[in-house]
Amino acid sequence: MPKVSDDRLAARRREILDGARHCFAEYGYDGATVKRIEESTGLSRGAIFHHFRDKEALFLALAHEDAERMADVAAEQGLVQVMRDMLARPQDFDWLGTRLEIARKLRTDPSFRSAWLAHSADVEQATLRRLERGRQAGRLRDDVPTDVLVRYLDLVLDGLITRLATGQPTDDLHAVLDLVEESVRIER
Amino acid sequence: MPKVSDDRLAARRREILDGARHCFAEYGYDGATVKRIEESTGLSRGAIFHHFRDKEALFLALAHEDAERMADVAAEQGLVQVMRDMLARPQDFDWLGTRLEIARKLRTDPSFRSAWLAHSADVEQATLRRLERGRQAGRLRDDVPTDVLVRYLDLVLDGLITRLATGQPTDDLHAVLDLVEESVRIER
Repeated sequence: MPKVSDDRLAARRREILDGARHCFAEYGYDGATVKRIEESTGLSRGAIFHHFRDKEALFLALAHEDAERMADVAAEQGLVQVMRDMLARPQDFDWLGTRLEIARKLRTDPSFRSAWLAHSADVEQATLRRLERGRQAGRLRDDVPTDVLVRYLDLVLDGLITRLATGQPTDDLHAVLDLVEESVRIER
Repeated sequence: MPKVSDDRLAARRREILDGARHCFAEYGYDGATVKRIEESTGLSRGAIFHHFRDKEALFLALAHEDAERMADVAAEQGLVQVMRDMLARPQDFDWLGTRLEIARKLRTDPSFRSAWLAHSADVEQATLRRLERGRQAGRLRDDVPTDVLVRYLDLVLDGLITRLATGQPTDDLHAVLDLVEESVRIER
């Protein structure tokens, strides 16, 4: 297939993802009907579902993008930096509310659940590797197993997502993240 | 009004709350239709809405019960104990998933939001008072303002609720809560 076509396909895929992200942010998972996804992407359902099998696949592709971005930051700068980025640009995380709305689906739909958890695992792995490096460099506390620290940071991240998704103020969370960061370090 | 009647009213109210809690846990906020609430309480809509103005009022009454229970434990034993109780009996917190599903409503419905946040404030106040006592007793670290510690614990609680509500395993969170508890204490 000639290069130009690949570029066009990638651009089309990008348009669909961006439009769908806005649509999920605005209407929620259930509220993001195919008709509304058509409107927010400006594309027909035929074009959309040429790229993504169904709404679920589209949603999981967005979650996968998030996870990749978070894993990159987590690998380089740690999971606390991922959280600081969220605090700095809450408007970019509008769509996170959708992550809460799918709680029931996660609990009751095993295949959706395993696809979703695979993404979380990427972020956990990136966090784990960074913490291991921190441990080797003597920055990380050594009295608690690294996997406990990963789960701890992950739990705080879930809390932060909930906070953002419910529209609660987050200005006052910078000092909290300082505390979180410090609690995985070697000394106060 | 004679005493027996009060008892009956209270018992009826109790039946409605218990049935509704199961109904919300099973079907979610939107899925808990009036018809389903009738089925799970075994009562007619007339009887139910004699006690509670509407579904929203019923939901907020359940949230209020939770908040009262959590505030009692938080006041006596701290917010970490509230979380330990959740880990010990996850099945009692089935309905917490509903708390996530209402994220959109919290974000977009100001009166619902303020009613909801009032409950959270009760738990925060109870936690704050307990931490203040801990500080006076010299158990609490004194290099971080108490309100930052409260917000920290609250954020972890939100994370834990999300974890439970999405049906993720929580067995491995005991060590995480040890870390959380220790990070608000005076020394490692």
